[in-house]
Amino acid sequence: MIKSINHIGIAVKDLDKSIEIFKNIFNFESVHKEVVEKQKVSVASFEVGEVLIELTSPTDDTSPIAKFIEKKGEGIHHIAFESDDVNSELEGLKSKGISLINDTAQEGAHNMLISFLHPKSTNGVLMEICQKK
Amino acid sequence: MIKSINHIGIAVKDLDKSIEIFKNIFNFESVHKEVVEKQKVSVASFEVGEVLIELTSPTDDTSPIAKFIEKKGEGIHHIAFESDDVNSELEGLKSKGISLINDTAQEGAHNMLISFLHPKSTNGVLMEICQKK
Repeated sequence: MIKSINHIGIAVKDLDKSIEIFKNIFNFESVHKEVVEKQKVSVASFEVGEVLIELTSPTDDTSPIAKFIEKKGEGIHHIAFESDDVNSELEGLKSKGISLINDTAQEGAHNMLISFLHPKSTNGVLMEICQKK
Repeated sequence: MIKSINHIGIAVKDLDKSIEIFKNIFNFESVHKEVVEKQKVSVASFEVGEVLIELTSPTDDTSPIAKFIEKKGEGIHHIAFESDDVNSELEGLKSKGISLINDTAQEGAHNMLISFLHPKSTNGVLMEICQKK
């Protein structure tokens, strides 16, 4: 069952420059920085209430984030919804006719299991389902 | 001070069709529906944990949502951050060089005062600051 919003992903070109932009707005004191090799991204995240804002930059030109920025520009990329059991959530969604980008969960940032749904099934919204390991 | 994420706005063409798409994913039982004349939108919202997902469709072709969909397609439109005092928040952001779309707060859905920041100051992210009245 989807129980909450874990984070909102923002696609950015230059991570350090973006950290400064958002620090000026939100006055956060520290960010968590991480490279997720499998997703070809570097992320920097900070909390707003119960939700993380995850600034996400591509590690190379073949990263999905690089392609997103090329097509749509920098901005909101995805919403990540937290479940207690991502793989059973994926099974349930699939049985309801929803297309998945990842059939089973993969390694994500923050030691989470993650999977993306296809935006064609979700009204153009890129949705991630994630689970704490 | 920005304390939490109040809602995430999703731009959609056909509100009733979109309610069905998201109901299939989230299994919510009811939605709150409202027309916000001033913003030229119809909204339908449901809760995911502490955050509202606000499906937003244009009431006519001159609505900012109609223009957004024409340019970028349906999908995530904005993130709304909640403050205890939206107008003093706007003053603070302005003094830090952040461009505002609305200099003072306007009437929004859910009996809130709302104001948008200009995406050129926020790394391409359309940000709303809102306050419960």
